[in-house]
Amino acid sequence: MQTWIDIQRIRAKGPLVHNITNYVVMNNSANALLALGASPIMAHAIDEVDEVVAISDALVINIGTLSRAWIESMILAGQAARRKGIPVVLDPVGCGATSLRTATVRRLLDEVRPSIVRGNASEIRSIVIDERGAKGVDSAHGTDEALEAAEALARRHGCVVSVSGETDLVVDGKSVIRVRNGHPMMPRVTGLGCTASALTGAFAAVNPSALEAAANAMVVSGIAGEMASERSSGPGSFQVSFIDALYLMNEDEVGKRMRVEMD
Amino acid sequence: MQTWIDIQRIRAKGPLVHNITNYVVMNNSANALLALGASPIMAHAIDEVDEVVAISDALVINIGTLSRAWIESMILAGQAARRKGIPVVLDPVGCGATSLRTATVRRLLDEVRPSIVRGNASEIRSIVIDERGAKGVDSAHGTDEALEAAEALARRHGCVVSVSGETDLVVDGKSVIRVRNGHPMMPRVTGLGCTASALTGAFAAVNPSALEAAANAMVVSGIAGEMASERSSGPGSFQVSFIDALYLMNEDEVGKRMRVEMD
Amino acid sequence: MQTWIDIQRIRAKGPLVHNITNYVVMNNSANALLALGASPIMAHAIDEVDEVVAISDALVINIGTLSRAWIESMILAGQAARRKGIPVVLDPVGCGATSLRTATVRRLLDEVRPSIVRGNASEIRSIVIDERGAKGVDSAHGTDEALEAAEALARRHGCVVSVSGETDLVVDGKSVIRVRNGHPMMPRVTGLGCTASALTGAFAAVNPSALEAAANAMVVSGIAGEMASERSSGPGSFQVSFIDALYLMNEDEVGKRMRVEMD
Repeated sequence: MQTWIDIQRIRAKGPLVHNITNYVVMNNSANALLALGASPIMAHAIDEVDEVVAISDALVINIGTLSRAWIESMILAGQAARRKGIPVVLDPVGCGATSLRTATVRRLLDEVRPSIVRGNASEIRSIVIDERGAKGVDSAHGTDEALEAAEALARRHGCVVSVSGETDLVVDGKSVIRVRNGHPMMPRVTGLGCTASALTGAFAAVNPSALEAAANAMVVSGIAGEMASERSSGPGSFQVSFIDALYLMNEDEVGKRMRVEMD
Repeated sequence: MQTWIDIQRIRAKGPLVHNITNYVVMNNSANALLALGASPIMAHAIDEVDEVVAISDALVINIGTLSRAWIESMILAGQAARRKGIPVVLDPVGCGATSLRTATVRRLLDEVRPSIVRGNASEIRSIVIDERGAKGVDSAHGTDEALEAAEALARRHGCVVSVSGETDLVVDGKSVIRVRNGHPMMPRVTGLGCTASALTGAFAAVNPSALEAAANAMVVSGIAGEMASERSSGPGSFQVSFIDALYLMNEDEVGKRMRVEMD
Repeated sequence: MQTWIDIQRIRAKGPLVHNITNYVVMNNSANALLALGASPIMAHAIDEVDEVVAISDALVINIGTLSRAWIESMILAGQAARRKGIPVVLDPVGCGATSLRTATVRRLLDEVRPSIVRGNASEIRSIVIDERGAKGVDSAHGTDEALEAAEALARRHGCVVSVSGETDLVVDGKSVIRVRNGHPMMPRVTGLGCTASALTGAFAAVNPSALEAAANAMVVSGIAGEMASERSSGPGSFQVSFIDALYLMNEDEVGKRMRVEMD
């Protein structure tokens, strides 16, 4: 894994990342992508998502504030992205909390076949196991409790699964990458998981290995969280400093902070 | 009123607060709830709001960026919440500014019967009196000019009414609580009223007295504003510091700053 | 051009600016307007936009996250604003990136006849020339490459065209104003162009010259960017300091920083 090289690639190429995402995080996701060096575009209308996919380098689908009309756009955009051959990242926000979300995630897995699924432990478990383990959009499980489900999901759908938590797990059904970067303040800021999904899109746009791209995004997100914790006094200033950190991140920070293990 | 005890309850229990709210404030409301110690979920689809209510500890309905489709979800969610017996907070943003908003607020009062209505003076007046006193979503009245309307509203609908302004009024038709916390910068930051409504939902989730819950939220919101004013240089940094303050608030800050009078 | 006088007018009058804008920037646009001294209202429902226009002093239409339902509201609100005689600002976000956006912008130009169109160079070019020059919502052109298109657009539709970039151009088909304020960090923060459009609405509400209003907004936006750059360490804190700067801006800052040339 050469996280720093891929950060430089993003900064050099500025990949266009198309986000069909939730209302809560749109501003922060766009800012995180810009701070990292990518170009965000948010577009959800059924009349234009295929044209947006046509100019984009990756697609991120996030179901955080779902409604019927948006689901059809997600399917259409996702299928266009697969036909074009650009990576598709799916963030199953709140999967397991409602039947609409669980059914939508399963439908997107079947009809879009995303390259990477990134969620918290409860969300990933609920895709595979019929349970309502989530506390709304927050996880009620540690990531190790989702390892089996993540591997099953990866094998069944031929995708990479990225499970965020205190230790992030990134699996493809064969390898397991554990990313130990991050900070306890991160779950106290809304949408940092969604932001990690957006960053995953940017990394997938510059690296054909979905496994590496997913892991790189978790490393960078975790390091940005560590850097932010040193420059903030609460979750409000943490959110701001997190964006600054993505912009300020350099080879030295990545080198000294990165904590990754591979099985 | 034991505001500090209820802050500790929120931090211990982490109540799930379901928000059907406006696009402008979703990120800040979610962050304010997380900073205080509650768990936010934003969901508006008619297909899932009843399931979200089923796992939630309070429901906050905010009409800030209203449209027809959302109104039906608000009604459905509100009725599900009443059946389940969890508190419902209604924020009548911009009531009086358009007939859609006024009619929707009155319909929600009749069909949902919220436990707490929290708005500014012009909004509360316009529910009871046929006037267009608001300046868009900002108040054109002091809170004392809304006392009579608030009390009439509280008696007619058997709810608590929380009127925010320089001095906040919280009434149930018998008692009047005046909260003198806050800072003049607060109306210069968008959505701090909406945030107060979200916090009201968190307090109502841990205290069966709607009167106390509504007052606690105004105290905490006001104190956070005072703390933010000491760590910021304008409305941008105030918004950030306000979130930090909710997270940093301790018994000492609450004890020394709280300014509440009860009739 | 008397930028400082118009800032004072905004602070004294607090004009109500109605925004039909995109989900990404709603919070920041509202905060920018409040920080400057104006009053924002965000409303998009076809059932109420005409009533919101009726109480507003300017209308800003921004197509950043477009969908069919919103287009009809934009047309209705725009026509109501023209009948009432208040200024209409159009921000053609992503024009040229999809045919929905290009067609919608052209329809709004014909059916609403906005007083001011404010976009980046690629967006302005794509209205006039059939090209897909934009990189999503970011510009692929310098502003001078859009001068001819801007002038053609201004003449054809009798409007002022404001092209933002390193040097902003404001044209009415006869005069050309060049605003050299700003900072390289500005394109790294999402929605600062959209914010400039919102500010344009506030300036147009207090000055009948659309040319001066458009130029004043670019001066103030650029100066706020310069001030923010001196108080921030990355795009996250820049976004926060930009709002602070709009609030803190005084005669001295405007006088010493303003860099405007008129042909």
